[in-house]
Amino acid sequence: MVRAGSASVTAGPTLAVVAREAGVSVPTASKVVNGREDVAPETRRRVTEALDRLGYVRRPRFDAAKAPGLVDLVVHSLESSWSGAVLHGVEAAAHEAGLEVVVSAGPNRARGGRPERDWLDKLTARGSSGVLFDLAELSPSQYAWLDHHRIPYVLIDPAHEPPAGVVSVGAANWQGGVSATEHLLGLGHRRIAVIAGHRRTMGSSARVAGHRSALASAGVPHRAEYVRYAGFDEATARLRTHELLDLHEPPTAVFVCSDRMALGVYAALAERGLRVPDDMSVVGFDDLPEARWIAPALTTVRQPLGEMAATALRLLVRMMQGERPEGTRTELSTRLVPRASTAAPPLARPTA
Amino acid sequence: MVRAGSASVTAGPTLAVVAREAGVSVPTASKVVNGREDVAPETRRRVTEALDRLGYVRRPRFDAAKAPGLVDLVVHSLESSWSGAVLHGVEAAAHEAGLEVVVSAGPNRARGGRPERDWLDKLTARGSSGVLFDLAELSPSQYAWLDHHRIPYVLIDPAHEPPAGVVSVGAANWQGGVSATEHLLGLGHRRIAVIAGHRRTMGSSARVAGHRSALASAGVPHRAEYVRYAGFDEATARLRTHELLDLHEPPTAVFVCSDRMALGVYAALAERGLRVPDDMSVVGFDDLPEARWIAPALTTVRQPLGEMAATALRLLVRMMQGERPEGTRTELSTRLVPRASTAAPPLARPTA
Repeated sequence: MVRAGSASVTAGPTLAVVAREAGVSVPTASKVVNGREDVAPETRRRVTEALDRLGYVRRPRFDAAKAPGLVDLVVHSLESSWSGAVLHGVEAAAHEAGLEVVVSAGPNRARGGRPERDWLDKLTARGSSGVLFDLAELSPSQYAWLDHHRIPYVLIDPAHEPPAGVVSVGAANWQGGVSATEHLLGLGHRRIAVIAGHRRTMGSSARVAGHRSALASAGVPHRAEYVRYAGFDEATARLRTHELLDLHEPPTAVFVCSDRMALGVYAALAERGLRVPDDMSVVGFDDLPEARWIAPALTTVRQPLGEMAATALRLLVRMMQGERPEGTRTELSTRLVPRASTAAPPLARPTA
Repeated sequence: MVRAGSASVTAGPTLAVVAREAGVSVPTASKVVNGREDVAPETRRRVTEALDRLGYVRRPRFDAAKAPGLVDLVVHSLESSWSGAVLHGVEAAAHEAGLEVVVSAGPNRARGGRPERDWLDKLTARGSSGVLFDLAELSPSQYAWLDHHRIPYVLIDPAHEPPAGVVSVGAANWQGGVSATEHLLGLGHRRIAVIAGHRRTMGSSARVAGHRSALASAGVPHRAEYVRYAGFDEATARLRTHELLDLHEPPTAVFVCSDRMALGVYAALAERGLRVPDDMSVVGFDDLPEARWIAPALTTVRQPLGEMAATALRLLVRMMQGERPEGTRTELSTRLVPRASTAAPPLARPTA
């Protein structure tokens, strides 16, 4: 009988009460309730009698037919607004597919000193039916482990080119680099720097390539001193900005390959007493919520993170059903979101 | 044999290949591989032979002894930085306890028109061993359902006073309201307004009570016109700010009961050409990442969300083991984080 209004976690006897009544430990009582084998028959009898005597309501047994399947989402870090957007997209698409999502911050913690296969062991022990990796940097042995255990997986925005045949979803990074740079060229900038992430990560190098391609199309010569790498790190981006400002001929605009690095650019400019966009135009990449919150609001290249995540989930579901996706890399389009951090270069403006 | 370097999701035959070989559908082949009963014996034989012939490597069976348990985290919305902080805390503590976390955006979606028990059905079908609810507004029948199925649960920052006996974790909201208001009083403000959330939610009313208590201790009379409710909504907080500014004697400072509502206050002040903190001091509540990103950075009352979430997980684990927590409400302390949005009131400052 459900007693609405007097609802409480302590309605009916707890397992602790049952254990006391049976004269056994709580873990032992729990084993009996959960149908585990490793309990002596006499102990099992005592616990069962106590359960009946006290009217303990057992939890329903696992019902595989009714229970939704589980998929895993392994993220780099749970503290960023990036993972919030990815998780939102994955969860919504999983719900549509009748699946639930187990979330873990695997690889990130692994680098904190634990054995790198810790979280893979967990996935295989549970018999994971499929895994999405967000921003993963999987090692060859990790790829091999997943394949060996026949666990289907899809990578969301992998840092490096994955091995042949691995399915991934990303954004049109090259096109994004083109759009960002064309926007700045259109405003009259010719001295345009780029602050990239890591030299060899896929997303970063494609964005830089798009940037260079746009410059070339406009007949603006590429200057090596205008290309800096900051490892997607805000503090490093701040340092790189100071380096750019110390050049004999500093840029009038900078295309920064992530919104978080753009925060570092803003900090460096503020330290010099320079204003965005009056003294320097800034374009970011990602369109995380912070792009709207900072002042001035950041012109940026939007990656459709939620859609990328949902697409990855849908590809994973097809692979779980034994299908093989047509292509191994799915790219969703990026688009420039103009806000308040870009304007004509100082020299092109009439002086007040 | 693990072939590192040639890793691919398609190493070995896929289930689709097996199904074709056996002359059955992929779902049927999948049923056989997964040991389901509802397959005709002859079909099972054909699939098993195809599996052997093709050298299909089965995924490891679920190993309960090695597999970590699952707990559920049901959040209000996955799109906020609030849930990012909560999820981070829950996941880290779950990892410590050898548990994994299934995340769903249940109640929020439920309000979108689906039956409210949709997600509860899922939890019970899977035999959830325990649930954490973040910012939940559970109905009496939802509480009763959980209790009836003997699923242990803990509420993180529940909106309303939960029924007797329900275990919850929150922040010291009253003390937070005191700290915010004492900070403003200390700067010389006497005309201090408060923009609260919902009139009857626990957190909001405790913060307003702390605010009034601090005013009373300082001998500053309470003015009913200085108390406004904005339902924790940014747009409504913007409207309430305009109302406060239209008063015959507008406040010189406002304590806003969430950082997100403080964004609305900033927007309203900008619309009037008023500056923070020169024309109006603003104190927020929560200390979400956006409090640091907005300009000027927001002075706010920090709720330790990650710690609250980890505490809730640890309480849940004890309940899953049959223990009963000593108290039903655990409060973690709040503290004022002074940043750039508060200063002395305009009249108290010497005019330049």
